[in-house]
This record gives sequence, structure tokens and C-alpha cells, in this order.
Amino acid sequence: MSRHERPNIARMQGYTWGEQPEDIQTIKLNTNENPYPPSPEVQRALADIDVSRLRTYPQPTADLLRQAIAQSHGLDRDNVVVTHAGDEALRLATTTFVEPGRSFGMANPSYSLYPVLAAIHDAHVVSIDLQADWSWPGDFATQLNNAGAQLTCVVNPHAPSGILCGLDKLSELAKDLDGVLLIDEAYADFIDPELNHNSAELLSKHDNVLILRTFSKGYSLAGLRLGYLLGDPQLIDPIISKTRDSYNIDHISQMLGLAAIKDQAYAQHTWHQVRLARDTLQQNLAQLGLPSPPSQTNFLLVEVPPTLPKNANALYLLLKEAGILVRHFNTPELDYRLRITVGTPEQNQHLLETLTRILT
Amino acid sequence: MSRHERPNIARMQGYTWGEQPEDIQTIKLNTNENPYPPSPEVQRALADIDVSRLRTYPQPTADLLRQAIAQSHGLDRDNVVVTHAGDEALRLATTTFVEPGRSFGMANPSYSLYPVLAAIHDAHVVSIDLQADWSWPGDFATQLNNAGAQLTCVVNPHAPSGILCGLDKLSELAKDLDGVLLIDEAYADFIDPELNHNSAELLSKHDNVLILRTFSKGYSLAGLRLGYLLGDPQLIDPIISKTRDSYNIDHISQMLGLAAIKDQAYAQHTWHQVRLARDTLQQNLAQLGLPSPPSQTNFLLVEVPPTLPKNANALYLLLKEAGILVRHFNTPELDYRLRITVGTPEQNQHLLETLTRILT
Repeated sequence: MSRHERPNIARMQGYTWGEQPEDIQTIKLNTNENPYPPSPEVQRALADIDVSRLRTYPQPTADLLRQAIAQSHGLDRDNVVVTHAGDEALRLATTTFVEPGRSFGMANPSYSLYPVLAAIHDAHVVSIDLQADWSWPGDFATQLNNAGAQLTCVVNPHAPSGILCGLDKLSELAKDLDGVLLIDEAYADFIDPELNHNSAELLSKHDNVLILRTFSKGYSLAGLRLGYLLGDPQLIDPIISKTRDSYNIDHISQMLGLAAIKDQAYAQHTWHQVRLARDTLQQNLAQLGLPSPPSQTNFLLVEVPPTLPKNANALYLLLKEAGILVRHFNTPELDYRLRITVGTPEQNQHLLETLTRILT
Repeated sequence: MSRHERPNIARMQGYTWGEQPEDIQTIKLNTNENPYPPSPEVQRALADIDVSRLRTYPQPTADLLRQAIAQSHGLDRDNVVVTHAGDEALRLATTTFVEPGRSFGMANPSYSLYPVLAAIHDAHVVSIDLQADWSWPGDFATQLNNAGAQLTCVVNPHAPSGILCGLDKLSELAKDLDGVLLIDEAYADFIDPELNHNSAELLSKHDNVLILRTFSKGYSLAGLRLGYLLGDPQLIDPIISKTRDSYNIDHISQMLGLAAIKDQAYAQHTWHQVRLARDTLQQNLAQLGLPSPPSQTNFLLVEVPPTLPKNANALYLLLKEAGILVRHFNTPELDYRLRITVGTPEQNQHLLETLTRILT
């Protein structure tokens, strides 16, 4: 270890990313990608890229994309900052609103990157355990306020359970919190549209709310690294004008992101397909003895009951041997569960057949 | 201003980026882009991108590109971390090696992003004035050590003067400094190859040296956002495994960067052309009464003597009116100077004709 490394960096563990095999044979149900390719409009936009345009700097604030994003949510451009995927959005919120040594709030379990970002920033992590039904405890806001949380990140729909928390509860939390509330909506595109869950409504009521969205899942662009934050202009402005890298979105990503978000019909069709496949997969897994909570995402958190002949880790390993990757987390709350991304109907069928073989 | 913004963020000014007009009529000699387009191999790599590959996450550590970069410098993969252009490299060095409240060292004048990054990080900026000939004062290292600089960033060849500092002096500085020395080689591709300036040699002698390179200038890819750091594996490892965002380089950038760095013949040809044009431009500007120090970069720092009918700011404005952008910095040391990027021979000729018209 270098003597130059900061003590908090030397002490901490880095983020453990999911396995990303480059072969195309593996059925990847481990990192919640959309099983369908990006829109044909993205392909067209890519073909239209003029390589000589890469010679000069990109538009610094990604304004065309920012405008299209704002429009898609019925907001103004000043409510939007485009980020290098959700990871940068989370990092920038931390950089902008949390003082090193002060507190960063979260629920446990949730996205395992949160405590890593807090550790890099040398912030104190306030991690409040969820209840057995994955809901916040009644005194969630009080605990966070007492600990002085300057930023609290909650993922909704929740990961890894997939459960959606309603707008009323979110609005109450925003009202009760002294600090900034970041609602990480990485999976929000997969919410059933009949639920009319439009969190952008919270922005008109609360000046301390940031909503995170990503192109990684809903728009099938995990390989591109594109996301954004929505919020009150007073929260967005310091990120745009001060804390982000000046040219944080490259020219190609700006063009491809624009093409993706404009083709709402295609994206929404993939979301619909994923929802259909999710419900079928959930029923079929339950029939195999692998129940999961109701999910409004593109994944299922499957419980592996002790009555089954294999435990979760064994199932993970046997599936991997059979060319199917799912996610197993080595934490007390999650050790007996598997997080399984919803694939195409064919992939899901293959998963079910493999599981049937393993379990019988 | 939001009450949630950190006090140091609320206090600071953001980075002022150069003007980036989107029209193609403007002759852009203000932000030091390479005047030649990227390699045809980059065009080919772009055409080969399979959009469906964007559905999944990129290779987390950009290993193919990392390997090619290492090879091009005669180093190992462990000596390299690929970054989202030089900006991310500078930010990550700050995050990894500087404790908030402690000191960040630099020379003045130099790259105006350095103090901004230090301010975001709530670090104390130790800015040591250069001497009249743009060299460090004799007690540069002593002053930095006395101030406790945990990281010192020096740009070499120097910006905005263009002057190259030799390896002996850099090696001495690295030896004398208690903290990390980051040598920002944004413009190193334009150094005359006959000078045999190979700073990677410093890495075998010093475990506290980081060398920053970028694809923005030398490889004509400012629009792509790609750069890297070279250093001892003990300095590189915490950046790779802890402080950078896990998927900091998107799939397309990995592929295009690989194509660019592999086509050394093309890149080196553009550097040679720029050097030829630079020397001609420098002589012609001097004949117009606009002298500049010897430059090993792709720009010239022109002095506008008080004997001329226009001052530097007036020249900047009149050139802009004529469709030519150059850079004018409003600081006491630079107020009577202009930084002019070396363009194509045609662009340089047009600049000279316009200046002649303005000045006579």
C-alpha cells in the first residue's frame, strides 16, 4: 500500500461489481440489464456520428439531451443534470451535499455502492435496517435527522426486493428529513403504468428531493454510461456549474441518449415485455418452491427456503456451471436469497428448466 | 442558493470552460484541439460497434485499452488506469491522495481547473508563483513541503506558456517532494521527438509520480473524454479498485480509444504537422510584433506589447468578431497575452491575415 493513500481510502473496501463475462453464450441474469437491445434509433444515431466532430469538445452541459429529458418529465431544463450513469449522479450528490466527517443516510439492505461512495468521501454512514416486509421503520426520518444525515439515498422501487414505495410515503419522508432525499429510480421504468407513479410531482412540493434515473436499464444502454438527476434548480445548479467534471458527457453519449429517449414507443414496448415476463417468471419460480416479493422492477428477489435440497449459494454456483449468472450477496439478510434479472421468455424458460433439473 | 449546499461549494466559483460554439464556420483556436480529425481507424471502429453490446455493462477496467496503453509506454497494465479524460484523472488523484482540509500544490499560472478541483474537495490550495521565465522558484519543493502539499500538479509542457521542463528537474522535484507529484502531460504528444523526453522513465525511480495523458489533444478525441494515469502500481491500485466509478469508461470509448492508440503512424503524422505549423506560426506572429516563448505544445502564448495599437482583450474581441476564437485569461499575469491554438496551415494563414488587418 502506498504511504500516500488517504487513511479512509486505505481502510475501505472498493465496490464489488457483478460478473461481466464478455462471451455471449452466458445467460446474464445477474446485473439487471434490459434483455432487449437498444432502440433501432440508437443504431441510426450511431451511424450518423461524424467522427470528425469528436475532434472538438462536447457541448459542456449536454443541453439537447437535457431538454429532451426535461420534456419527458414535464419539467424545465434547469431541473435536470445529465450524468455519467447513475454512479456519477450518486457521487455528485454526495460531493455537493455531504461534508466529509458528517453523515450519509441509507436503508439496509439497499444498493451496495452507497456505503462505498460514503467511505470514499470519508462520510459517516447511517444505515437503518428495513423491517421484515422491506419497509422503513416508523422512526426512519427521526433516526436519520438525529444522526445529522445531510443526504439520504433510498432506491425505489427497492433493490434488491423489487418492492415499490408509494408517493405519499416518499413525500412524507421528504418533508420530515432535514437533509436532501435522493430517490434512486434506477428501475422506475419497469413500474406498471397503471399505478400512475409519477415521482416528478414531488419536486413541486419539496426543494430537498433529487430523483435519479438511468439509461442503463430502461433504455438498454448500460454499456454507454448515461443517467440524470431531477430536482429543484437550487439543488441542480451547483452540480451543473461546480461539482461535475466540465465535459462529463461525451458527444456520442449525448447523441445516442437523445435518440433513445425520443423513441419512447420502443422503450415502453420493452418495459411492457419485461413486465409480462416478470409476472410469468415469478409464478413459475414460486411453483418450484422459490417465492419472491411483488416486484415493480426487472428482477426478482427469490427466497431459497431451507426445505429445498440446495441453498442459495449452491444454486448460484450450479446455475453458473450451467452458463446462467444470477446474483448472490454474502450478507446475513440476503444470504438465503438470489437476485434474478428478468430475461427474455426464452432465457427465463431455460433458467426454469435448469432450476428444475438442479432441484429435483 | 440551496441551504443544503456544502459551505465550501457555496463559496467557490466553478471552472470557466472555453467557448464551444457548435457552428463549423468559427475557426476554433481557443481550447487547444488537434486541428486534424481522428484516425480513419477510429471511424472504422465506430462503424464496427455493435449497438446490442451497449445493452450490457462495459468491461469494468477497460483492460484491452489499458494493455495497449501500457505497451505504448513500455509499462505493465498495473501501471495504468484509464480515465474519463484528464479531468477525471485529476479529480481521482485529488480524491485518493488529498485529505479535505489539507494541501493541494500547484504552480501559478497553470491549468485553471486545479484550484477548482481543490475547492470542490475543500483542500487548501498552495499556489507558488512561477518566475519571469516560467520556471519554478529554487525553493519550489521546500515551499510545497512546508505547506504539507499531499499532491502537487504540474503541467509539462507548461500551459499556458508551452515551455518544456526537462526530466532532470522533474526527477529532482519528485525526489524532493513529500507528497505525490502529478505531471500533467496533456500536451506531451506535441513534444519534438528529437528531445527524447520520455517521462515514463521517472516511474522506475520514483514511487510518488503520476503521469497524466489524454486522448483529447494528441488523438483528436476531445469529444470522446478519454485519458489515463501512469504510475507505480501502489498509486494506481486504489484508483482502480476504490475511488473511480466502477464502470468509468463506456464501451464505445474503450473501442475507439484502442483504435486510436494502435494507429500510431496516423497520430504521429498529425503531431509532426502541428509542430511544423507551430514553428511557422510563431515566426509569423513575431514578425507582426507578437512574440511567444518556445512552445513544445500545440499552442502559443503570444505577448501583446503596449506599443501595439490594440491590447490583448481588444484583439481577442476583434478576432472573435472576425470568426476566430482564441483564449484570453483575465488574470494579472496573463492579461496582456493571448493563448492561440495551432491550427491547420490554412487556419493559421487566415489568423495572420486577420491580425495584420486589425493591427495596421
